[in-house]
Amino acid sequence: MLQHLRPNIRAMAGYVPGEQPRDGVVLKLNTNENPYPPSPRVLAAVQRVLHEDRLRKYPDPIGRQFCQAAGRALNVDPDAILIGNGSDDILTILTRAFVPEGGLMASPSPSYILYRTLAEIQGARFQCVPFTPDWQLQKPWPVHGAHLTLLPNPNSPSGTSIALPDLERFADEIGGPLLLDEAYVDFADHDSLPLLNRGNVVITRTLSKSYSLAGIRFGFAVADPALVRECIKVKDSYNCDVLSLAAATAAMEDQDYRLSTRARILATRVRLTAALQQLGFTVTPSQANFVWCRRADRPLKPLYEELKRRLILVRYMSYEGYGDGLRITVGTDEEIDRLLAELRQLV
Amino acid sequence: MLQHLRPNIRAMAGYVPGEQPRDGVVLKLNTNENPYPPSPRVLAAVQRVLHEDRLRKYPDPIGRQFCQAAGRALNVDPDAILIGNGSDDILTILTRAFVPEGGLMASPSPSYILYRTLAEIQGARFQCVPFTPDWQLQKPWPVHGAHLTLLPNPNSPSGTSIALPDLERFADEIGGPLLLDEAYVDFADHDSLPLLNRGNVVITRTLSKSYSLAGIRFGFAVADPALVRECIKVKDSYNCDVLSLAAATAAMEDQDYRLSTRARILATRVRLTAALQQLGFTVTPSQANFVWCRRADRPLKPLYEELKRRLILVRYMSYEGYGDGLRITVGTDEEIDRLLAELRQLV
Repeated sequence: MLQHLRPNIRAMAGYVPGEQPRDGVVLKLNTNENPYPPSPRVLAAVQRVLHEDRLRKYPDPIGRQFCQAAGRALNVDPDAILIGNGSDDILTILTRAFVPEGGLMASPSPSYILYRTLAEIQGARFQCVPFTPDWQLQKPWPVHGAHLTLLPNPNSPSGTSIALPDLERFADEIGGPLLLDEAYVDFADHDSLPLLNRGNVVITRTLSKSYSLAGIRFGFAVADPALVRECIKVKDSYNCDVLSLAAATAAMEDQDYRLSTRARILATRVRLTAALQQLGFTVTPSQANFVWCRRADRPLKPLYEELKRRLILVRYMSYEGYGDGLRITVGTDEEIDRLLAELRQLV
Repeated sequence: MLQHLRPNIRAMAGYVPGEQPRDGVVLKLNTNENPYPPSPRVLAAVQRVLHEDRLRKYPDPIGRQFCQAAGRALNVDPDAILIGNGSDDILTILTRAFVPEGGLMASPSPSYILYRTLAEIQGARFQCVPFTPDWQLQKPWPVHGAHLTLLPNPNSPSGTSIALPDLERFADEIGGPLLLDEAYVDFADHDSLPLLNRGNVVITRTLSKSYSLAGIRFGFAVADPALVRECIKVKDSYNCDVLSLAAATAAMEDQDYRLSTRARILATRVRLTAALQQLGFTVTPSQANFVWCRRADRPLKPLYEELKRRLILVRYMSYEGYGDGLRITVGTDEEIDRLLAELRQLV
């Protein structure tokens, strides 16, 4: 059977997501989950579905209620919203919509390593362009004719954000479809919604981070309604389930709650950044719910491993031609205190 | 932006799923949902997740607990199970794993119309081969070198099933990957699990029908563990959410409940079939939770529309070179009585 697989699938290694230990003992600061629970309205909404005998029926294929809630929250046309089974699903849909086999995808680097995997699955080429040392986009951008260019903003692992005027110039320069992955934008000081009128920009969002809903798999795109209609042809008919739709809609309708957890995370981010700097780390100022820290004086893999032995998981990352670092999720104050106490013993 | 879309995406019409009216007044006999609620264990399992603060954390990417439950229920290796966000997700994963752009997919006809859509999204050619008049596969099968051959067994809309020896010969004859879509197999008198050792067979299942869980979007494949490992590279990392995984696992662990609703549906199927025949319909003996009925004396679209006006939805289907028919889901006895009362007035 394996000999019948497409060669690009055989050849690829596959994306390895961050570790997900099943026990509750490990302190998880490795996959940028929100340390606070979702809005109480989310649980109430899921309960309602359970009591209404709706599990046995197919969900709404386009998630009209969610689109209306998101439209209100973001002040955009509900028809500009495309629902996804996590923003991974949205990334897959957009890849399949724009990129032919043998096509070209491009992204800055170091950045979200899943993008290369998306290209490998599609049988497309992937070109990455190093960020400048201060995490800006190269000018001029050296890739021409990409079928899809992907830019996380804020970026992972750096947590940095490209300013709106620079993004505008970038969108105009590349001309082709530009996917702005705003997974972390709710922790930043600006978003890219004003760019939607450029014609070649699609924005993706997730409920995994700022809405504390990584478990339910819900993301969405904001784009020209004409493009949303085309993407609906590409997605699985019922890509979002009835419980996730109810949870996501309730979360979107409780913006006050999101803003309250955001405020707590931003306050802890300030503390974490300062404490890491005091311990001798170089910390990039973050616009996300994680910080990226490095050290010139030592490799960081042993530190990552020692933390893991002490039941604290952070994300160790090493990029060819760039070097390594630790990406640390901003947890609660108590969680960050536990991390810092261990780090003080170790460095 | 639209000019940047792949031409195959622009050109395709898109799959149109069965209507999903949002109100509770309409009697839905059009999308083969189960008329009985899921096992009570399913609701308890979802409640447990809600109380355990697990929504904010990513789910298990490979759904180990579900795989173990399915392995026990089907008496297969848990590593032979691939989890999917509905069996649609599984069909998409297998298409992307086997079929290159410009490749060939094949299926009998009339059959599940989504298969052509999968080919269109992938940019592949699609060839369908008419069933024989008694719903058997053509011998010899006229398509050679398909990258993926898809066969629903039982088939939709006919509800008919190919016998195991014929399937065995078919798998050997085509040689390439054969996807046996067993969405309806729990209502049939045999399944194809004995064929898994043929080397080129993958079986797909869904929890939408026999487990009353269309709303949670959960399906799976049973295949050689080596193929499952390759497909894990193709799927979205976290393609199944924590609530669906809990629900699906609980449902799989309650086989007694599934068998009890199966028995009720099979009894109603007998009644529905006999009553439709009495009303002058030609009804194909069904191995699924629906029946396919036709009439030589009149076109069926007006009847479908009149039923819809009377708030009963069935699925009207018309296939080029074959003709039309109504696919009617086996509901509860009360629901079928309501349908039959209307039909008695109309024919």
